[in-house]
Amino acid sequence: MAFKLHNYFRSSTSTRLRIALNLKGLEYEYIGYALLRHEHKSADFLARNPAGLVPVLELDGGTHLAQSLAIIEYLDETRPEPPLLPADPPGRARVRALGHMIACDLHPLNNLRVLRHLEISFGADERAREGWFRHWVAEAFDPLEKILATDGKTGIFCHGDTPGLADICLYAQVWNNRRFDIAPDRWPTIARIFDALERIDAFSAAAPPNQPDAG
Amino acid sequence: MAFKLHNYFRSSTSTRLRIALNLKGLEYEYIGYALLRHEHKSADFLARNPAGLVPVLELDGGTHLAQSLAIIEYLDETRPEPPLLPADPPGRARVRALGHMIACDLHPLNNLRVLRHLEISFGADERAREGWFRHWVAEAFDPLEKILATDGKTGIFCHGDTPGLADICLYAQVWNNRRFDIAPDRWPTIARIFDALERIDAFSAAAPPNQPDAG
Repeated sequence: MAFKLHNYFRSSTSTRLRIALNLKGLEYEYIGYALLRHEHKSADFLARNPAGLVPVLELDGGTHLAQSLAIIEYLDETRPEPPLLPADPPGRARVRALGHMIACDLHPLNNLRVLRHLEISFGADERAREGWFRHWVAEAFDPLEKILATDGKTGIFCHGDTPGLADICLYAQVWNNRRFDIAPDRWPTIARIFDALERIDAFSAAAPPNQPDAG
Repeated sequence: MAFKLHNYFRSSTSTRLRIALNLKGLEYEYIGYALLRHEHKSADFLARNPAGLVPVLELDGGTHLAQSLAIIEYLDETRPEPPLLPADPPGRARVRALGHMIACDLHPLNNLRVLRHLEISFGADERAREGWFRHWVAEAFDPLEKILATDGKTGIFCHGDTPGLADICLYAQVWNNRRFDIAPDRWPTIARIFDALERIDAFSAAAPPNQPDAG
């Protein structure tokens, strides 16, 4: 088994990477880190990624790669089938942009570490943290829904009828939203795409409850 | 002139894109949107990008591309010289990961819209917002410094002796940090790379004070 995946079941960046590995048919050893017990801040993990963030993909030979989207691009470059990005540059730009609407504009704001820091810095209680979380989900999902619903390039999935990088981000984020019981119904195109993805084994097998460290 | 750049002088995602356009030697028409006057929430701008976020690159023919890193990858794919990513996949993964440490883990948390939302939601005053800003800069720049200082792949710039995607993110973020007078001195390798980048016209010409809407 060539790959070791250092990750956490509920981390949505970890979910992204698990989906990509599954879609590429790549086996990996699953190594879980309990973020609530700060295991990703241990000396062992920091030697793998000084940023102290999951996921990290350890390659055969010991190289460690960090940052979910950078790793997924690496997998797509080194194992091209099935492709996670379309072949044409405008299509690639569209798929990356849809993915980054989640990966850059939404997910970083609703991370566990950010919710914790809101509590420490501003005394934000559970209800305030939920308000924060919901705000940023809507800020990203409202325009994402609009783009997906109105652009003819959307198909069964975010871009045509083949699942790719944008779908990976969308699927992981819809799972992440469940932390505060946010169902995707308010965004019908996102909900429809999520349902289609849920029927693909590579996606559903990567979902948080299906991981060995799920608790 | 083929490109129209819809952007804002102080936006660091806009700075990234200006650098990439300059490095590629691509001319563009500069169209500024005063974020403080909410011009990026106008119907005109929302028709270009429903997310209401700068920058947007309008191509000849009217296609609008959003998300700075997706646009930069598009430019690199369609105008390969000079390359903004190395040729080898592990090198590309390293450069993208360094860039994403800023673009995903840092910049989204310190955006103008986030600082505003802290004020609205938690009554965060200028001092509290500065504390928040400094916290996330340190959370990202401390490990970034460690990686850049200890990894032999670092050269004059983040990856060898050619400026690329990671340098683009680093340069824009160091400018962004000046909003709260954060000098890079605390991170000597970052400071050294920033100084080297500052001497390249493509970078310094893209800096916020050198834009037509700078005020």
